[in-house]
Amino acid sequence: MHKIKVGIIGAGGYGGVGAIELLLDHPNVEITGLFAKQDIGRPVSEIFPHLRGFCDLMVFDPEDPAAPSDFDAVFYSTPDGVGQKGARKWLDRGIKVIDYSGDFRFNDTVTYGGYAARIGKGQEHASPDLLPGTVYGLAELHRAEIAKSNLVGNPGCFAVSCILGLAPAVKSGIIDENSIICDAKTGVSGAGKKVNPSYHYPARYDSMNAYKISDHQHVYEVERELGLLAKKDIRITFTPHVIPMTRGILSTLYCNLKKGQDLKSSLDAYQSFYRNEKFVRVFGPEKAQSTSDVRESNFCNLSVNVDERTGKLIVVSMIDNLMKGQAGSAVQNMNIMFGFEETTGLLRPGRFP
Amino acid sequence: MHKIKVGIIGAGGYGGVGAIELLLDHPNVEITGLFAKQDIGRPVSEIFPHLRGFCDLMVFDPEDPAAPSDFDAVFYSTPDGVGQKGARKWLDRGIKVIDYSGDFRFNDTVTYGGYAARIGKGQEHASPDLLPGTVYGLAELHRAEIAKSNLVGNPGCFAVSCILGLAPAVKSGIIDENSIICDAKTGVSGAGKKVNPSYHYPARYDSMNAYKISDHQHVYEVERELGLLAKKDIRITFTPHVIPMTRGILSTLYCNLKKGQDLKSSLDAYQSFYRNEKFVRVFGPEKAQSTSDVRESNFCNLSVNVDERTGKLIVVSMIDNLMKGQAGSAVQNMNIMFGFEETTGLLRPGRFP
Amino acid sequence: MHKIKVGIIGAGGYGGVGAIELLLDHPNVEITGLFAKQDIGRPVSEIFPHLRGFCDLMVFDPEDPAAPSDFDAVFYSTPDGVGQKGARKWLDRGIKVIDYSGDFRFNDTVTYGGYAARIGKGQEHASPDLLPGTVYGLAELHRAEIAKSNLVGNPGCFAVSCILGLAPAVKSGIIDENSIICDAKTGVSGAGKKVNPSYHYPARYDSMNAYKISDHQHVYEVERELGLLAKKDIRITFTPHVIPMTRGILSTLYCNLKKGQDLKSSLDAYQSFYRNEKFVRVFGPEKAQSTSDVRESNFCNLSVNVDERTGKLIVVSMIDNLMKGQAGSAVQNMNIMFGFEETTGLLRPGRFP
Amino acid sequence: MHKIKVGIIGAGGYGGVGAIELLLDHPNVEITGLFAKQDIGRPVSEIFPHLRGFCDLMVFDPEDPAAPSDFDAVFYSTPDGVGQKGARKWLDRGIKVIDYSGDFRFNDTVTYGGYAARIGKGQEHASPDLLPGTVYGLAELHRAEIAKSNLVGNPGCFAVSCILGLAPAVKSGIIDENSIICDAKTGVSGAGKKVNPSYHYPARYDSMNAYKISDHQHVYEVERELGLLAKKDIRITFTPHVIPMTRGILSTLYCNLKKGQDLKSSLDAYQSFYRNEKFVRVFGPEKAQSTSDVRESNFCNLSVNVDERTGKLIVVSMIDNLMKGQAGSAVQNMNIMFGFEETTGLLRPGRFP
Repeated sequence: MHKIKVGIIGAGGYGGVGAIELLLDHPNVEITGLFAKQDIGRPVSEIFPHLRGFCDLMVFDPEDPAAPSDFDAVFYSTPDGVGQKGARKWLDRGIKVIDYSGDFRFNDTVTYGGYAARIGKGQEHASPDLLPGTVYGLAELHRAEIAKSNLVGNPGCFAVSCILGLAPAVKSGIIDENSIICDAKTGVSGAGKKVNPSYHYPARYDSMNAYKISDHQHVYEVERELGLLAKKDIRITFTPHVIPMTRGILSTLYCNLKKGQDLKSSLDAYQSFYRNEKFVRVFGPEKAQSTSDVRESNFCNLSVNVDERTGKLIVVSMIDNLMKGQAGSAVQNMNIMFGFEETTGLLRPGRFP
Repeated sequence: MHKIKVGIIGAGGYGGVGAIELLLDHPNVEITGLFAKQDIGRPVSEIFPHLRGFCDLMVFDPEDPAAPSDFDAVFYSTPDGVGQKGARKWLDRGIKVIDYSGDFRFNDTVTYGGYAARIGKGQEHASPDLLPGTVYGLAELHRAEIAKSNLVGNPGCFAVSCILGLAPAVKSGIIDENSIICDAKTGVSGAGKKVNPSYHYPARYDSMNAYKISDHQHVYEVERELGLLAKKDIRITFTPHVIPMTRGILSTLYCNLKKGQDLKSSLDAYQSFYRNEKFVRVFGPEKAQSTSDVRESNFCNLSVNVDERTGKLIVVSMIDNLMKGQAGSAVQNMNIMFGFEETTGLLRPGRFP
Repeated sequence: MHKIKVGIIGAGGYGGVGAIELLLDHPNVEITGLFAKQDIGRPVSEIFPHLRGFCDLMVFDPEDPAAPSDFDAVFYSTPDGVGQKGARKWLDRGIKVIDYSGDFRFNDTVTYGGYAARIGKGQEHASPDLLPGTVYGLAELHRAEIAKSNLVGNPGCFAVSCILGLAPAVKSGIIDENSIICDAKTGVSGAGKKVNPSYHYPARYDSMNAYKISDHQHVYEVERELGLLAKKDIRITFTPHVIPMTRGILSTLYCNLKKGQDLKSSLDAYQSFYRNEKFVRVFGPEKAQSTSDVRESNFCNLSVNVDERTGKLIVVSMIDNLMKGQAGSAVQNMNIMFGFEETTGLLRPGRFP
Repeated sequence: MHKIKVGIIGAGGYGGVGAIELLLDHPNVEITGLFAKQDIGRPVSEIFPHLRGFCDLMVFDPEDPAAPSDFDAVFYSTPDGVGQKGARKWLDRGIKVIDYSGDFRFNDTVTYGGYAARIGKGQEHASPDLLPGTVYGLAELHRAEIAKSNLVGNPGCFAVSCILGLAPAVKSGIIDENSIICDAKTGVSGAGKKVNPSYHYPARYDSMNAYKISDHQHVYEVERELGLLAKKDIRITFTPHVIPMTRGILSTLYCNLKKGQDLKSSLDAYQSFYRNEKFVRVFGPEKAQSTSDVRESNFCNLSVNVDERTGKLIVVSMIDNLMKGQAGSAVQNMNIMFGFEETTGLLRPGRFP
């Protein structure tokens, strides 16, 4: 079988190793280049010893002129600000680019500027002319555009959980769109591999916290996507939390149901919206639900509940932040961009315990 | 110094050992009797080996006629349904009773019945005549009544975090009382010492879940207490979650601010409400906040935030569920009931890490 | 491709779900029957929700006459005492059996009796006539016999780590065989899915312990296997420990080196012994080694060290107790028994983090 | 009551906060100065928020001439190399010094040089003339000397667990002193507060490892102390491990029993050796033992076992590495140096769970 050649920039982080793990199992892909700013010249299996014998490619500096460059696709598993500087050189050569950061999630400099302000970076995008051509890489909402695009901005992990958990409600019009509250909890891997006093084992093992209250950058993309579905501006309240576990996001989503709506109509809306989706599973309130049900898999599990006493729709949305929230979505997008079966390399149930 | 004699029923659980640990350090208390349904006849230090040399009292069956009975106060650190059957015999002898369960949190059988229905127990209270005389044991709201009472119903752990986090907003009238959403996260110790497949280490170490969505029994007491403050009926939306840690509850509380209210007026309301409280600390949004800040202590930390984009007051309320959420509150109530300095035995900062 | 049909008895435990996860990815296998003593009549994906859509087979009582029985192989992922009663009915029909317990690890009733005494079961084996025909399922030592056998006793998880870590030293004669000390540490999943107060999350999250000091049942098989290699009786000292993690065994193995032996000769012995093995990786002392390097994979990593001051060989042996220590070895044995490529379905690097 | 004034250098680390927590509860002590190299000018309760209201002292640069200096004792809770440069200025003023590092654990430059070589620092001690006057701060072995000393070198955490676990066996002569193997496991807090990729939560939560095999610096002090007891040179084999928990060291200690020795004589030796010790508890093999039994307390629990098959004495030694392994021992030493009751401020049972 013909295999496409893929390069990964940012191979030393959690997003990079997640892509490597998935692509090693992908029948249509050969990993042909790994790049990072650290550990240059070392085999990636020294950085991630579990890869030994599976992927021993050497890590290159992305600026190294002698580095591999024969790719069909490049993953930017890098922080904000990197892909926007580097993507053009690949695109100019017809190589497709999937970026994990916020660099290509927005189609204009104004929206990007709002995002950039929140993350404390300067507001000037390095490649503003590329923005109109980018696609927001959430396959369940933008499959057709992804298929036609060469430049996809992979969504934020919190955003995946919130958008998938709210889209059917917003699209079907069963809720008041201005009542949305997203209470999101993430495991520590969502913050990446970089050490931080707050994620030092003894500081974290028995401690949880809220952070960036009403100020997280993912709010932008959630509001944009929901607004597109509702065909009107939407503002949400969003609070992220970090808890002492590794893999998993659970977002508890609260909305005011419109009059006449109930559990049955809500479940109908969700089941109907996702009836053809392979990676979204819809459950009613009767099921016990846990992030371990989606751990190490590309699935999003949704539990749809209604609090009749207060008229709220309460959706619990669960993903593995490193899979559907990051590398899994990236591979899903790659599959769509190259015309592979969308689930290729992703149909695995994860591991328990 | 004269010491009161205290007996603990349910000494083999987390609530019991928490009381023992605190009372061992209490200058006005001598523990003179321990009771449980299991491990009868064994020293409590075999059940909890860290107590060896500090408390080696033998555990008695509560029904044993030869068991110690010379007490000034009795703690019922027992599940729902136990204290309501046993409290009278102590009360009749002038012994004060503090019950950890829902048995004495409500003053009438109707409200208790609603609570009892939720926990799946029969609705008949075993001692309905005692209910009018009980006091809800949250010192910050009911100090004067506790001081005069012989029978206190210690509040639920989630309820402590939500009520303390919402009382100033409700009392001061800065919010729409019918917009309240409580998203509560607890460590596993909140479920007690009893084994459960969901709390088996390998099933829990990397897994979180929501449960009892819009159906948790603590909703009742939160609504009752807030209603008393607001002088009107209040309905809240409440979702509890279990996360893989041991000690700590973090409740994220969302309310719609009334017109004209902002961060300053909100902070004023909270600081004013708690200005004389020793165990509640009020913080603005600028502070990083974590449950480890209150771990193993009797404090409740509140972080007051406002999302100006959506007009929400967002209060993050943090306690140690086994301290302010359970044994700590019980000892605080005991101090009040016996006229001791309220903070006696409780002014310790916890341990880190 | 022709697929063999496999039934799993004990499908509701960690050993069962591990086998299901691996066999779902195995190109030559179809799972056609699942059995357990609990959850009869429910789809296995209700017990293990991550399997939903991947394996939704119903769980049967093994005694149910209407249960599936058309198998080429049966896995007994069951505690001691189950397989010895049930294996014969499959064997009589030409169906191969792989048992996870100690039931078929020994070839005579005397040795089995010693083992059975340690685990506190009666000493009578239910099928003593089957014992001479069983093979100890550690492929690295018994590959040829496994290939010819219909009944394989999968090794104990501690035993795998100790035997693989000691076999080259014993076989090559570089150590004093009577000086061996095995200090073994396991994650909690090694104790299985059954709840236990000692493995309740709050009791375990910050606690480690030794247990069964000099009395663990796995000692028997380690001594037997090492004795076969040394061609003499060997007695080892073995101490198991449980630590607060889920997957992983790390055994630190101490032996007195014979005169004239050093790090180089030790490393040579290990590298030579395992030079053709796919699932054993030998490292010298220079490498940082961690159980996360083998997590969720079928590998055993060995770090060979010498303490020149005391003349000790110190080998650190690391496996995933649920993979090479259990289901992974079982699938490896199945591959050998059926003439499949030995690594089929097992060549995956695990996941990090 | 008259209180001594204590300053803590290195107040921002785990050793510093541990001392603060203990001294806040100590009736004879007032903390009057805190020093660190970071967070200068901030209240210590901003670094450790649980201290808020209990200790809000400002952190000073140790070089700041305006810093507090009116002390009776100074704790150096600092890494190797700091105390040896700073201690003299306090000693010259009659202020007693307790140092946590290896700087003052050895009485001559040769032994210190061997230690210094292992930790990769230069071999020259900054104050060699102070070494002969230092005392090794393990109260159970050097109580009388500590009482007379102004300069105590607090022992290493691993060393505490190994020395206390081996001293009775070595002193009583029941073992072959050259057969000793120490297999030590520590929680992550033993490595301090400094972030490290290996202690990043996602890298550590399900991972254990051995390190510094046969090369850990604590070997020196264990050998020295045991050698003093045996009155001859002793060499031990020592392997440290890090496991995913926070507080606790469990050292499994293996020795060859001399002929004629058995469990009874071993237990006698241990019980006799420690019969007057408040902080060492001796248990036979019958008791389940766990580090949680000593968590957050100053106790060392010892479980004495004999493997009759191999003639080994196996002692399991358990401490809280931050208490008896660090700050607890420091306070115990301070009590002795100032003539306070040795247990003052230390008689607490810890917390469970």
